[in-house]
Amino acid sequence: MADALTLHEDPRSGNCYKIRLTAALLGLPLETRAYDIMQGETRTPQFLARINPHGRIPVLQIGDGEHGGDAPRFLPESNAACWYLAHGSALIPDERFAQADMLRWMFFEQYSHEPNIATMRFWLRFVGEARLSEEQRAQMMAKRMAGAAALDLMNRHLGTRAFLCGAMVSLADIALFAYTHVADEGGFRLGDYPALVDWCDRVRALPGFVPMA
Amino acid sequence: MADALTLHEDPRSGNCYKIRLTAALLGLPLETRAYDIMQGETRTPQFLARINPHGRIPVLQIGDGEHGGDAPRFLPESNAACWYLAHGSALIPDERFAQADMLRWMFFEQYSHEPNIATMRFWLRFVGEARLSEEQRAQMMAKRMAGAAALDLMNRHLGTRAFLCGAMVSLADIALFAYTHVADEGGFRLGDYPALVDWCDRVRALPGFVPMA
Repeated sequence: MADALTLHEDPRSGNCYKIRLTAALLGLPLETRAYDIMQGETRTPQFLARINPHGRIPVLQIGDGEHGGDAPRFLPESNAACWYLAHGSALIPDERFAQADMLRWMFFEQYSHEPNIATMRFWLRFVGEARLSEEQRAQMMAKRMAGAAALDLMNRHLGTRAFLCGAMVSLADIALFAYTHVADEGGFRLGDYPALVDWCDRVRALPGFVPMA
Repeated sequence: MADALTLHEDPRSGNCYKIRLTAALLGLPLETRAYDIMQGETRTPQFLARINPHGRIPVLQIGDGEHGGDAPRFLPESNAACWYLAHGSALIPDERFAQADMLRWMFFEQYSHEPNIATMRFWLRFVGEARLSEEQRAQMMAKRMAGAAALDLMNRHLGTRAFLCGAMVSLADIALFAYTHVADEGGFRLGDYPALVDWCDRVRALPGFVPMA
């Protein structure tokens, strides 16, 4: 019997959505357990001791320790959780360069895309511009520029291919769709990037697609 | 014949060192081509058109197009380049959870470690504190705290295991060693984290180890 899968998440988070979307495209059942990060629910002593000492979601829990099974294991980092779920599936290319190239886009997502586009969305939509700190305000211009540069790079790359790694959808598309398709909520203008708009439509048309909460 | 491997790098960069260290531990020959990022040598039209439209190093070049071979391929993102090199080797565990857990630490490195510890090192050692912008200064306290939290998390994790994923060294150790072992250059105090000091010694003792330039 396959291990039970439980996603510890905040449904508003694109990083959590990546994992739900991967599971949905693969037809994997996934339980969810919701936390409100704005209320510090991932910083409680219980969460830190059992789920993730780093105090962050998402965390993918594998197994539930019931029915005499192994103790549950916990996997933080959204893109690592997607990798676990997609193991052995067509969402991860087999060929050596293609696999590394897919990971290239997933590392790009965590380094050059998420800290700009997701952070701006969090600040503008969930914290509220009036409540940002001086230090946050001081970073906004740099994040706007770096986020726009990330979208521009993707837009040029997708001008000549259906998905980030070529003709076939892969985890790279799932990882980057999560915050790209809601980039306007962070003050970006997705409509300025026509190849990204078309690519988002192709992701939405995938069999099993589920929207963000 | 194996493809020729060329690393486009700045030798002072820990992200470039990861790739050199991976190749050394695997006994793979690796040519290098040096660029000075402080002089904008990765933002020239030639570099952007041929090597990486994102204007960043490291980039791993696979193949040289000579001897009738295929056109060279270019792989940005340090951790993706390490993955390419280590494909099929013992530096990447085979087992499903272990492989995802290794990637978990590599994504942690790019999201929670590098932007704090490597950036502080770059600012303090290469730019110089007196030449930092207002915006950079405004971020220093947050980066000090987040960098110390990343080191503390690793230190606690390594208190009970030899390497990040257990008894065996993996790419996660290479990725995180690169900037951890020079964390003092960014104003952190590695000596405060005894398990990290011991782990650095274990990495240095690996057969084939090469130091940072």
